[in-house]
Amino acid sequence: MISVKRLEENFRRLSAIGAQAGGGITRLAFSDEDWEARNYIRELMEAAGLAVRVDAFGNLIARREGLNPAAPVVMLGSHIDSVPNGGNYDGVAGVLAAIEVVRCLEAAGQSTAHPLEIVVFMAEESSRFGMATLGSKAFCGKLSLAQLEQYTDKQGVTLAQAMRGRGLAPENIGHARYDQAIKVFLELHIEQGKVLETMGKQIGIVTGIAAPTRLKVVVTGQADHSGATPMNMRQDALTAAAEIILLVEKLAGQEGHNGTVGTTGMAKVEPGVMNVIPGRVELGIDLRGISAASKRQVLGELTAGIAEVQARRGVDMEIITLTDEKPVEISREIVEFLQNIAEEYGYANMLLPSGAGHDAMHVAEMAPTGMVFVPCKGGISHNPAEWASIDDIAAGARILLGAVRKLAESTETDNLG
Amino acid sequence: MISVKRLEENFRRLSAIGAQAGGGITRLAFSDEDWEARNYIRELMEAAGLAVRVDAFGNLIARREGLNPAAPVVMLGSHIDSVPNGGNYDGVAGVLAAIEVVRCLEAAGQSTAHPLEIVVFMAEESSRFGMATLGSKAFCGKLSLAQLEQYTDKQGVTLAQAMRGRGLAPENIGHARYDQAIKVFLELHIEQGKVLETMGKQIGIVTGIAAPTRLKVVVTGQADHSGATPMNMRQDALTAAAEIILLVEKLAGQEGHNGTVGTTGMAKVEPGVMNVIPGRVELGIDLRGISAASKRQVLGELTAGIAEVQARRGVDMEIITLTDEKPVEISREIVEFLQNIAEEYGYANMLLPSGAGHDAMHVAEMAPTGMVFVPCKGGISHNPAEWASIDDIAAGARILLGAVRKLAESTETDNLG
Repeated sequence: MISVKRLEENFRRLSAIGAQAGGGITRLAFSDEDWEARNYIRELMEAAGLAVRVDAFGNLIARREGLNPAAPVVMLGSHIDSVPNGGNYDGVAGVLAAIEVVRCLEAAGQSTAHPLEIVVFMAEESSRFGMATLGSKAFCGKLSLAQLEQYTDKQGVTLAQAMRGRGLAPENIGHARYDQAIKVFLELHIEQGKVLETMGKQIGIVTGIAAPTRLKVVVTGQADHSGATPMNMRQDALTAAAEIILLVEKLAGQEGHNGTVGTTGMAKVEPGVMNVIPGRVELGIDLRGISAASKRQVLGELTAGIAEVQARRGVDMEIITLTDEKPVEISREIVEFLQNIAEEYGYANMLLPSGAGHDAMHVAEMAPTGMVFVPCKGGISHNPAEWASIDDIAAGARILLGAVRKLAESTETDNLG
Repeated sequence: MISVKRLEENFRRLSAIGAQAGGGITRLAFSDEDWEARNYIRELMEAAGLAVRVDAFGNLIARREGLNPAAPVVMLGSHIDSVPNGGNYDGVAGVLAAIEVVRCLEAAGQSTAHPLEIVVFMAEESSRFGMATLGSKAFCGKLSLAQLEQYTDKQGVTLAQAMRGRGLAPENIGHARYDQAIKVFLELHIEQGKVLETMGKQIGIVTGIAAPTRLKVVVTGQADHSGATPMNMRQDALTAAAEIILLVEKLAGQEGHNGTVGTTGMAKVEPGVMNVIPGRVELGIDLRGISAASKRQVLGELTAGIAEVQARRGVDMEIITLTDEKPVEISREIVEFLQNIAEEYGYANMLLPSGAGHDAMHVAEMAPTGMVFVPCKGGISHNPAEWASIDDIAAGARILLGAVRKLAESTETDNLG
């Protein structure tokens, strides 16, 4: 059965690797700390009886053979790298829960028809090389040698150089593409939001992984003297921008039931002094949704609204699309499958979208994929104050264990704790 | 009669003093360029038959004696210092027009009952010492030795040191207070706005000089992940701030007929990144009006509106008053007096408030005061592109001449050009 004590001990050990004076950890991708943590995880995997291999990008893939080695793999995974001054649960929870699942199967002497694999994806965080989920991209064959040579950290070290420093051959990156059949991929993760906490739920079943559409809206008005320009002779870029900021909020709010959110996170005002009417404002807008149709609807209404404000106020508004990614919709079957297990075990649970991106969104292109969220305190993540209860993580691990047993066709009786 | 040719020549000569490569001028207060321009003006004054004295702050005061030397002085004036890369008309227009008025009286052999004085106020621009209208403050007895020693330029030179460098004794600053009776003070100035140009008027009669009330509003919400936080669980500081930005515009717009304007010129957003809901926004709000009652009304409604948004959105809003100055209301008699002259001469004219501050606002505390505006192209000022037509300035000078004749009790017939 899932051991809270073992999980606790593993978290304690991992949180010492890359520990920061003020709490939290810094384990940038391919750094010494990242490698030390990776070696610790490798030891845990081997101690759990798994056969560990390393793919061309450095992702760890640990296998527990199935009674039918040719059967599609049931796969679990997440990451252990962090942002600078990050927390102890982001990614780590999913890796340690997966290892704990295997330990339970071992302890129960339980073999499965399907092989079981745990993947630790390298470089999930964008902090070092400016791009996120690099390991899962490589795993899906979406990372090229050209990209490895292009992505560079603040010290000017390319990703390719960092890989060579770890004994990996960037020119083999194509081989990182996973080529076996995957039955289902499951990732447990802390929510990195406060929905579960607010709603008093211990388990979240993820219905989709939102993808960002990011816009820059440049509003150009006329910078005039704030005292000498009557209200009816202004082309104020900031008041026009304020309408857009409220429109983003309103339109996303109307699509809230579809899991769509919209945020204006940046507003740069020029010249930005007390006695001049703003002549130029640059807004950074982030739209996310798990429903492509809902996000498209918000985007369409926003575009129309921007045109209306532009015409009415006589200012110029330019919309620049920075990114426009497709959300990952998780199949209804997998959501129901996971929710049924949560219900069966009596965990207070709910369905919710994932606002943040995860390795699972890439794997979802290759295989049926599911995600289980556990609460994190105050929704805080990427911060030393990040915290999740081991009991909740254990609950999530029990869901994974139950799912693996069903998916991998257990040959022993269930002995969940 | 007012000579366009003489005015043109004077502007040409002055624009060469402190001229910048890209056009415009830099004549910071008490700089060599400022002193060279001051000397040129002094020569013009003496050539026009005026007796020039220097007060304790360095303000030039040029007198044309009246038939009754003890009668209250009719006074004209403005400034000749500039901002860095400033224009050729700000301040200069009022000084050169005043000198041209005296030339006309001299040419006509016309004496007046009242003495006539022209004042060139030093350091009207805040660019060098961080405070504006220093010369007129000193003239009104509102500048202390402590302030002279406190105000410092970017090179660390105090205003007191700069004065000593020009042979002035800062410890005598109290003597700068003008102690004779003033019948009326009149200042001609370029509008520094685009109302006259927009309305197709050649002359503006100023109804009041707006004083700023400046507020900092600090909005504190909750910085959460932009993807993982549903719309109904947010305390977004920027959307709350957007409501305030629009409220400032709306409330000032409702008081537009009273000459009140409101501007949010600054908005600092924290953390100001795409994927975090803004947790803190700092707004800089500038309210100006010539009607204290109207400005107070806007301020009252804004305060109430901020409280409402704060309560409704569950964010915190702190209002910090940075300055709260009283507007200068110009008497109805002087406005009508000047407007009647403009009408008499057939100039397209209108009444309008001054949004910017001027030396006249201090003199107004001591004496009845009026201002005449002439258009400037596009409302542009404090910029090398600042431009006003000599014909418009000459029209303004004719208004001054007409006013001086009436106020100083002319003893000759009117021979306006």
